[in-house]
Amino acid sequence: MRFDKANGRYGFILAGLLVGACGGGDKALLPPAPPAAPPPDPGQTAAAVDKSDPRSSTAPSPKRPLTSDEGMWLLSDFPSDRLGKLHGFSPSQEWLDHVRTSAARVGAGCSGSFVSPNGLVLRNHHCAAHCIEQLSTAKKDYIASGFYAKSEKDEVKCPEMEIAQLLSITDVTDRVLAATKGLTGARFNEANKGEQSKIEKECAKSDDVRCDVVTLYRGGRYNLYKYQRHQDVRLTFAPEFATAFFGGDPDNFNFPRYDLDVTFLRVYKDDKPLSGGHYFKWSPSGAKEGDLTFVAGHPYKTSREITVAEFEFLRDVELPAKLLRLSEWRGLLTEFQTKGAEQKRIASGRLFYIENSVKGTKGRVEALRDPDVFGKKVAAEKELRAKVDADPAMKEAYGGAWEAIAEAEKKMKNLQSRYVMIESGAGLWSDLVEHARRLVRAGTELAKPNEQRLREFVDSQKPALTQKVTSTAPIYDELETLTLTAGLTGLRAELGPDDPFVRKLLGKETPRELATRLVKGSKLRDPKVRKALFDGGEAAINASKDAMIEFARSIEPEARAVRKSYEDDVEAVVKKNAELIAKARFQVYGTSVYPDATGTLRLSFGQVRGWEEAGRKVTPVTTLGGAFDRATGKDPFALPKSWIDNKAKLDLSTPFNFSTTNDIIGGNSGSPVVDQEGRIVGLVFDGNIHSLGGDYAYDGKDNRAVSVHSAALLEALDKIYGASRIVEDIKASR
Amino acid sequence: MRFDKANGRYGFILAGLLVGACGGGDKALLPPAPPAAPPPDPGQTAAAVDKSDPRSSTAPSPKRPLTSDEGMWLLSDFPSDRLGKLHGFSPSQEWLDHVRTSAARVGAGCSGSFVSPNGLVLRNHHCAAHCIEQLSTAKKDYIASGFYAKSEKDEVKCPEMEIAQLLSITDVTDRVLAATKGLTGARFNEANKGEQSKIEKECAKSDDVRCDVVTLYRGGRYNLYKYQRHQDVRLTFAPEFATAFFGGDPDNFNFPRYDLDVTFLRVYKDDKPLSGGHYFKWSPSGAKEGDLTFVAGHPYKTSREITVAEFEFLRDVELPAKLLRLSEWRGLLTEFQTKGAEQKRIASGRLFYIENSVKGTKGRVEALRDPDVFGKKVAAEKELRAKVDADPAMKEAYGGAWEAIAEAEKKMKNLQSRYVMIESGAGLWSDLVEHARRLVRAGTELAKPNEQRLREFVDSQKPALTQKVTSTAPIYDELETLTLTAGLTGLRAELGPDDPFVRKLLGKETPRELATRLVKGSKLRDPKVRKALFDGGEAAINASKDAMIEFARSIEPEARAVRKSYEDDVEAVVKKNAELIAKARFQVYGTSVYPDATGTLRLSFGQVRGWEEAGRKVTPVTTLGGAFDRATGKDPFALPKSWIDNKAKLDLSTPFNFSTTNDIIGGNSGSPVVDQEGRIVGLVFDGNIHSLGGDYAYDGKDNRAVSVHSAALLEALDKIYGASRIVEDIKASR
Repeated sequence: MRFDKANGRYGFILAGLLVGACGGGDKALLPPAPPAAPPPDPGQTAAAVDKSDPRSSTAPSPKRPLTSDEGMWLLSDFPSDRLGKLHGFSPSQEWLDHVRTSAARVGAGCSGSFVSPNGLVLRNHHCAAHCIEQLSTAKKDYIASGFYAKSEKDEVKCPEMEIAQLLSITDVTDRVLAATKGLTGARFNEANKGEQSKIEKECAKSDDVRCDVVTLYRGGRYNLYKYQRHQDVRLTFAPEFATAFFGGDPDNFNFPRYDLDVTFLRVYKDDKPLSGGHYFKWSPSGAKEGDLTFVAGHPYKTSREITVAEFEFLRDVELPAKLLRLSEWRGLLTEFQTKGAEQKRIASGRLFYIENSVKGTKGRVEALRDPDVFGKKVAAEKELRAKVDADPAMKEAYGGAWEAIAEAEKKMKNLQSRYVMIESGAGLWSDLVEHARRLVRAGTELAKPNEQRLREFVDSQKPALTQKVTSTAPIYDELETLTLTAGLTGLRAELGPDDPFVRKLLGKETPRELATRLVKGSKLRDPKVRKALFDGGEAAINASKDAMIEFARSIEPEARAVRKSYEDDVEAVVKKNAELIAKARFQVYGTSVYPDATGTLRLSFGQVRGWEEAGRKVTPVTTLGGAFDRATGKDPFALPKSWIDNKAKLDLSTPFNFSTTNDIIGGNSGSPVVDQEGRIVGLVFDGNIHSLGGDYAYDGKDNRAVSVHSAALLEALDKIYGASRIVEDIKASR
Repeated sequence: MRFDKANGRYGFILAGLLVGACGGGDKALLPPAPPAAPPPDPGQTAAAVDKSDPRSSTAPSPKRPLTSDEGMWLLSDFPSDRLGKLHGFSPSQEWLDHVRTSAARVGAGCSGSFVSPNGLVLRNHHCAAHCIEQLSTAKKDYIASGFYAKSEKDEVKCPEMEIAQLLSITDVTDRVLAATKGLTGARFNEANKGEQSKIEKECAKSDDVRCDVVTLYRGGRYNLYKYQRHQDVRLTFAPEFATAFFGGDPDNFNFPRYDLDVTFLRVYKDDKPLSGGHYFKWSPSGAKEGDLTFVAGHPYKTSREITVAEFEFLRDVELPAKLLRLSEWRGLLTEFQTKGAEQKRIASGRLFYIENSVKGTKGRVEALRDPDVFGKKVAAEKELRAKVDADPAMKEAYGGAWEAIAEAEKKMKNLQSRYVMIESGAGLWSDLVEHARRLVRAGTELAKPNEQRLREFVDSQKPALTQKVTSTAPIYDELETLTLTAGLTGLRAELGPDDPFVRKLLGKETPRELATRLVKGSKLRDPKVRKALFDGGEAAINASKDAMIEFARSIEPEARAVRKSYEDDVEAVVKKNAELIAKARFQVYGTSVYPDATGTLRLSFGQVRGWEEAGRKVTPVTTLGGAFDRATGKDPFALPKSWIDNKAKLDLSTPFNFSTTNDIIGGNSGSPVVDQEGRIVGLVFDGNIHSLGGDYAYDGKDNRAVSVHSAALLEALDKIYGASRIVEDIKASR
């Protein structure tokens, strides 16, 4: 599943980085590995050369040719000419505007799109699973059974979901650069963040407008993204997990696939379905082999232009540690699920998410360990540095940047465990702790002037913050105790039992004793209790005797200290110097390349195409009939009863899933696949195994995006689920 | 704990490579990572330069100076002169013979020693835990309560333990080299192994003699080790787990430590305690800071002279995959233990072992990822290759060896998952499957002439094989189902659900269904059933309808095929070329260096010494009083009741644990620490965290062995446990 992300928006827990699914707001997916480099600042991409594709010679920059279909393009800088040369179609500005306004931003972990005039949103099942799970109970498990609202009043609100439509993009580079001119270290960081918070506040005049300053080209450019924000999002349709994730973990990141990984949501405004907005029409036939396809989505983060030192840090320090942690947690939850049906239900979302992340991270580490990938990275850096060193002025301005970043990474190596375990919260894995820490920190931060706050507490973030505080998502004590025990055990293992902070937290208790006591001693599972503390501010927080609040207060000094070390000694240095390298790269290679992904809207193009796997040709399109052939009747290869019962009604030759050469990455899950007419032909839900290396380089030879075909969606809605309301809504949109 | 080993003796399951503790015979410790290089053939060591120690200039080879106390020396090549120069003491041949005959070989994973004239053997608790667990029941848990046989008749036989005393070492290099002259690939391998099997058979004329041909200097030398074999080994004393492993996983590989990690066993012959054998006397006072110490034990495997390609394979492929698997299993067993007291008991041995292995492997991977360690490795190889290339004759003879090994490692990369999952059995994690596979393979192999058999089924291995087949160790269905489900899930994940072998094994069943059916459908938990099949040979095996036997039969063709690929395309190539490199190294640097560890007896020397940790001096000796200071009363920092009750009787200033500069590694657990008089002053049970890199290089600056002090052993036996029989036996030996 393509919704995993290595780092959170700002790389800390309170922006929502603990385990969950890619539901609402900035809710992210996993106890984060901390940022190795400035988390939200990816770099400009010139990327790898596709040796196999003759068309790469048509790339815009003769010095740094792009692979044929490579690129996660800004909608404000789309290479229409290049596309015309490659595929004979040059999108107009109008076409691009249509795509921009019909795409939906759905939290930082996933993508989506509007597909009807009545606020209907198309999304992946795995990206809405968090909501579906939150709405389920021991008696009614919508993950297992699926969900269909037969009438408008049956549509149920998701507790933590936010969907946003991009209204405008404004360049604010000059303002941000002016604010940091001549500054370094902590002062650079403060000024940089303070100015961004200021710009956002000026922009977000009401709660239904969301404004984010986005750092592009690793600091080479700053853009202000202004969105219409919707927090009343209701569940309309979800199929059974058994078809949404047919093949399960074994098939994840594989192809051929047979997954109906879809959810339909509906955006409401003033308690009525949103009307009059932009949306994509539905293609009557969908895509076939060779067709040109566009993917409009929010790729979360690529690292194609990090330095060699950052690359090595990811490969040798950050990702291996994350993988070990996740593997152990996978084992814990797998065995927890054998305790009973209810335990199976309440842990399934997290386990699904962890398995996805294990597989994705493993693929990324393997790409980083590939000597070819590393060799290209080293060669590209060497080339750029040689060009910089050959020019005295450039050498003076940029020559020291690589070494400065390498030094910062060395410091990060010593800081990493503490940062991940404490500030990022991997050693405090628990929804209740996350709530408590958010409340404690909000108490302190909201009392400060806007520009001096931590970035996740600035005024423009307040609606997202409030949504999290008041979320009605259920919290299960048994699972909380398990996760917090695991977190604290990991914390003690990583920092050592004699670490003063560990001693302070644990005292004479075991991790399990402490976790049990905290979970029992907290009332924070009740959103009303949280709301009261949130509204009561610092005074209410300081007066609280809730066990979790007291625990969070005791964590705060150390967590803030390690965050400050990271921000001053690592983040600020990497940011500043990455900006210098970006400038050098602009000067040497020009600007007609795309920036690294930043979780904001990008457009990629490609074709429906298979590839060769171990000498065998993989066909790019599967059929509904293929799903029946592959089914064993046993999880995860069991089709749901609805499919078996309605098999006779189906046209089994209907295309089901398909692969394309679009350059996508985690965060693209749920992206609409559209044709030249801007009509829906598919829904991205995965990439093949080769796509995992795409974080570091795109290889058009075998990197493939994997989508559900638009025809299969309609066929299943109509003939299996009898979801006539949705079918009509979609057909009306044609 | 220093008993972890990455590879089994021959790198396959049937030599006993599934999970267990380091109990009897060749019973090894973990579902193996497969051999990256020829498993039992480590290389000659010249090792790292200790920049900090002026005494390194006294090393024998001016070109490749050894760190002061570096070296796992052969008793037949001990550098007495060098030791005299360094520490003013040169052991005589008589002294060395005394050490050789008093040391005990106790399976391939641990060490031990004879310490009384009545067959009393000193060993670690963690190395005998497998036996203690096997003798325990739901009603009587000796792991928790400890064990003390008040009289001879209370001593209980360990089901799978073998202890051996080294009788002689004979050089058989010429014979083995003559047999393989001019051969390559599969034919080299067959001839090489066939000749070794032949030599062993000629030597082992009766079941109480054990003969192993040992490959030293990666094929530069072959020695025949002849042992007196003892299979009647009885448990005499074990303390409570709480003191044996005080500090648990958090303190493992740390120092200061406070562990009474000891077990006393007794060797019987003809149903009477062994008498008249060699043994170590007990020092009256034990070692103090600065004292010279010797460690005589069986370090399992070092890889100090592998090539850069082998190093990279370990770092990037083999060990990371192993770590992920172990981490997930750790999570599974941790949560399994929360199901109840009995589940906690039956899983504790495995979990303990896995945690130890996770920590050890993690330390090793980190050492491999250390740029300094890698840099030295690359530089050393470059230097040797340059010298080889500069001499036309050497270039002709040895010049191609490194590339040949690199090519073999590339092949291994493709083979690795299949090898580990199928032949090594990581995808078939279960005692019952291991028994079934051993029986099926024995049926086929024992029908062949001795020289044509797989190495673990040659006649000289038959006593060890029979011991395993007839073991009375209990098998728990619930745990079997858990482990086999985990194994099969991993198998499917690694090889993919569409792999023909995976499809054949699973059919339409889930891993859990298959595991459950197999465990229920097998009678192999009964040793009598196994013995009957073993004695019935191939015909009985082929006729068996036991579910596990049928399953093992279905695995056999694929398992043998992948093993053959490994042996012909990887093992044979690496072996042959490592031998060439060993010859080149002899020619360039001479022979006065020690060979890489091979699980056979070695002697290291050192001093009781602390080190500096982050600028802070670590004192090398702790006291019994320190244990009481550190105790929190909560697991794993809870002292047992016996300690609390008898605290007043103890001399709290008695030295408890201590650190020395001895060069040890996994397999050295249980090694006696002796003084210049050859008397017991301690019992090795661990190394500090810096010692984990010792697999690849010894750094005398901070690599430390950690031992239980002889005085603490006596004080505890006497005043806490009232174990007068043992105290008297030991004191009589003085």
